[in-house]
Amino acid sequence: MKPLVIMSDFGLADGAVSAMYGVAYSVCEQLNISSLTHEIPQYNAWEASYRLIQTVGYWPKGTVFVSVVDPGVGSTRRSIAVETAAGQYIITPDNGTLTHVKHISGIVAAREIDESINRLPGSGESYTFHGRDIYAYTGARLAAGVIDFAGVGPEVDPESVVELPIAVATLEDNTIHGDIDVLDVRFGSLWTSIPRELFLRLGVKHGDRIEIMIENGARLVYRNSLIYARSFADAFVGEPLVYVNSLDRMAVAINQGDFSRAYNIGTGAPWTIQMRKSRLKEPSYGE
Amino acid sequence: MKPLVIMSDFGLADGAVSAMYGVAYSVCEQLNISSLTHEIPQYNAWEASYRLIQTVGYWPKGTVFVSVVDPGVGSTRRSIAVETAAGQYIITPDNGTLTHVKHISGIVAAREIDESINRLPGSGESYTFHGRDIYAYTGARLAAGVIDFAGVGPEVDPESVVELPIAVATLEDNTIHGDIDVLDVRFGSLWTSIPRELFLRLGVKHGDRIEIMIENGARLVYRNSLIYARSFADAFVGEPLVYVNSLDRMAVAINQGDFSRAYNIGTGAPWTIQMRKSRLKEPSYGE
Amino acid sequence: MKPLVIMSDFGLADGAVSAMYGVAYSVCEQLNISSLTHEIPQYNAWEASYRLIQTVGYWPKGTVFVSVVDPGVGSTRRSIAVETAAGQYIITPDNGTLTHVKHISGIVAAREIDESINRLPGSGESYTFHGRDIYAYTGARLAAGVIDFAGVGPEVDPESVVELPIAVATLEDNTIHGDIDVLDVRFGSLWTSIPRELFLRLGVKHGDRIEIMIENGARLVYRNSLIYARSFADAFVGEPLVYVNSLDRMAVAINQGDFSRAYNIGTGAPWTIQMRKSRLKEPSYGE
Repeated sequence: MKPLVIMSDFGLADGAVSAMYGVAYSVCEQLNISSLTHEIPQYNAWEASYRLIQTVGYWPKGTVFVSVVDPGVGSTRRSIAVETAAGQYIITPDNGTLTHVKHISGIVAAREIDESINRLPGSGESYTFHGRDIYAYTGARLAAGVIDFAGVGPEVDPESVVELPIAVATLEDNTIHGDIDVLDVRFGSLWTSIPRELFLRLGVKHGDRIEIMIENGARLVYRNSLIYARSFADAFVGEPLVYVNSLDRMAVAINQGDFSRAYNIGTGAPWTIQMRKSRLKEPSYGE
Repeated sequence: MKPLVIMSDFGLADGAVSAMYGVAYSVCEQLNISSLTHEIPQYNAWEASYRLIQTVGYWPKGTVFVSVVDPGVGSTRRSIAVETAAGQYIITPDNGTLTHVKHISGIVAAREIDESINRLPGSGESYTFHGRDIYAYTGARLAAGVIDFAGVGPEVDPESVVELPIAVATLEDNTIHGDIDVLDVRFGSLWTSIPRELFLRLGVKHGDRIEIMIENGARLVYRNSLIYARSFADAFVGEPLVYVNSLDRMAVAINQGDFSRAYNIGTGAPWTIQMRKSRLKEPSYGE
Repeated sequence: MKPLVIMSDFGLADGAVSAMYGVAYSVCEQLNISSLTHEIPQYNAWEASYRLIQTVGYWPKGTVFVSVVDPGVGSTRRSIAVETAAGQYIITPDNGTLTHVKHISGIVAAREIDESINRLPGSGESYTFHGRDIYAYTGARLAAGVIDFAGVGPEVDPESVVELPIAVATLEDNTIHGDIDVLDVRFGSLWTSIPRELFLRLGVKHGDRIEIMIENGARLVYRNSLIYARSFADAFVGEPLVYVNSLDRMAVAINQGDFSRAYNIGTGAPWTIQMRKSRLKEPSYGE
């Protein structure tokens, strides 16, 4: 018996998530089921992918994740289950939801769901709720040990798992170029694609000033020199800062404020960020 | 020990739902408790009824549902528990919350809660939180096997369970007349009262065009010819479609769009929908 | 094994809460974990404190609560665990989150978390997610019995636990002066600091009229004579009323309306409320 963790873009306002829970408990009433989030923006496989990489590493080995963010329900996209390098399982439509896990953690095996076996009995007439009829059902069977990983269906090449384009942060001329991957929705911080190790190659330490430049396409949206803080408490209330987020990547925030709203900064392809060590020795408010 | 599933209009922003969980776990720490939704619009027994019928069928036999959507807390409305034809239990104020379950699944037995027995000890001074003090407490006792169904209280006639008016969809002159029962909140689809079997009597098959007319009272709000799609993927992104929803009824949506917002269409009594087979052979975009 | 209940201001839109669950289940997969709420307004320790007192009393003895509302993450504020007079445990940054529990229920023992022992292995590089790396981890260990209360860390004086200023309601010249502590978010009721026992010293009984005066600083915002109702059903739909809330304190509401929005009334320091027995014998609509 392993934990079953469900994610979707369904929201919690209607009965869809509870129907998935019910199907899973009908497979095995003793299951340990919880929700990752159901507030993924509709059809946004990129954000689904990001929320998985933010979370899966903190769960026990063998945990089964079910993700249902599926613009192509009813299309020919495959339904797959993968085994990660860390020994966890993720069941999802093969639409890019596994991008970060494949890229960062690694996928060691993949199988396509055999719907002739792994489909809720009697559900054949509805073609629109695969989350309930296929994904939750198959995830529950795997978590409960009714089937093993091989029982999901025929093996497919892990390399064939669909990936969304993911830009790697680069360091050139003492400047790091990265993307704004995702928002910390509640607190308005910007989470970038820049890993801490790359950032440290700028030769900076806590308390130093970092020059930040944020662009939307070719348009400069924000430029400022920010403190590289060990944590929010190293900045004044209302002061912007650069810090290492809980994914070990660089993030930009305002202490007790909302960076994203303050400067109307979003996420995704057109948004880029540059970081370099500030050349000027600016006065530090904290001294 | 049976699953306990709780629904309310309390939202999740304060401690009310957790207090109900706490009362239930105080009855039995081993209980399996989860939430259907707590986002029912305040006092809306119709939507509570709809969310129950959307969900209960997917849960194991013997599951105990507690619904607390209660405009009449403290009034003389009864507090009841019912047994459905499928062998599940629902505990609720008797205010119409059981309309769809009674109409569609069937209720085989009903009991009025005896509050002299089934009330959280020491809770007599607060008259406003029956959800915690009576419903969650009684539901937990039933789910944990502390009481059996007869232990809820005296038997009442299942026929006496309050029903909200529910209009049955009709077929006349090759046109089906139905209601817009509820929104799929997150995706903006309209879920109608028209069962799939009735719809198929129009002699249509997947790929055919259906003429849709939506009225608010006497005012025509929407008229168009839509593809009858097996699933969203059969329509272009942004194209409207008619499909069979997860309750086996007809629904109207825009693929990756929001039908309800696009045309300002709501739910409830004044909203009606008509469907008939399109007479014109329109060009199919998909060909 | 005791229930673990988690509260935060993280919202449910990303993976933060699920990462905490994962850490806790990694300590012990058999844990019983649930959420109090994750919708505390950001950094609002006062509301966190209020939601705890609204809830903890309904949970079994020995339940472990983890609260992560933490404007000072990374600062020198202590991380503590306390034992309440009722035999429950609460783990939180020591920032006022325990104000109401200390004041109303009582704290009998307190310990500072020894982070050299009670910190998620390998989490030392991230300084920003103590909720996951310290609080959830320590809470899970305590709930699972991996450590006992003494294992949290060195004892500290319960009296030293930080309290936010809390005004006590007073009765003078037949008028009670109190504060508006918090909103019932979903229904717009105002929850005051006035205990039922103090209120009853006005010599009132159900059905009597109460004169209510609400001020924002020195500005009078609302003055009216309201029915003291046993429950909402004693008032007409749309009628305001005074009642005893689920915390055994006085509250003001509109039956099936939203008092807070109707009169633009908020909560916190500048908002005060007075109650006295109405001198005029007004006509009662209900007679």
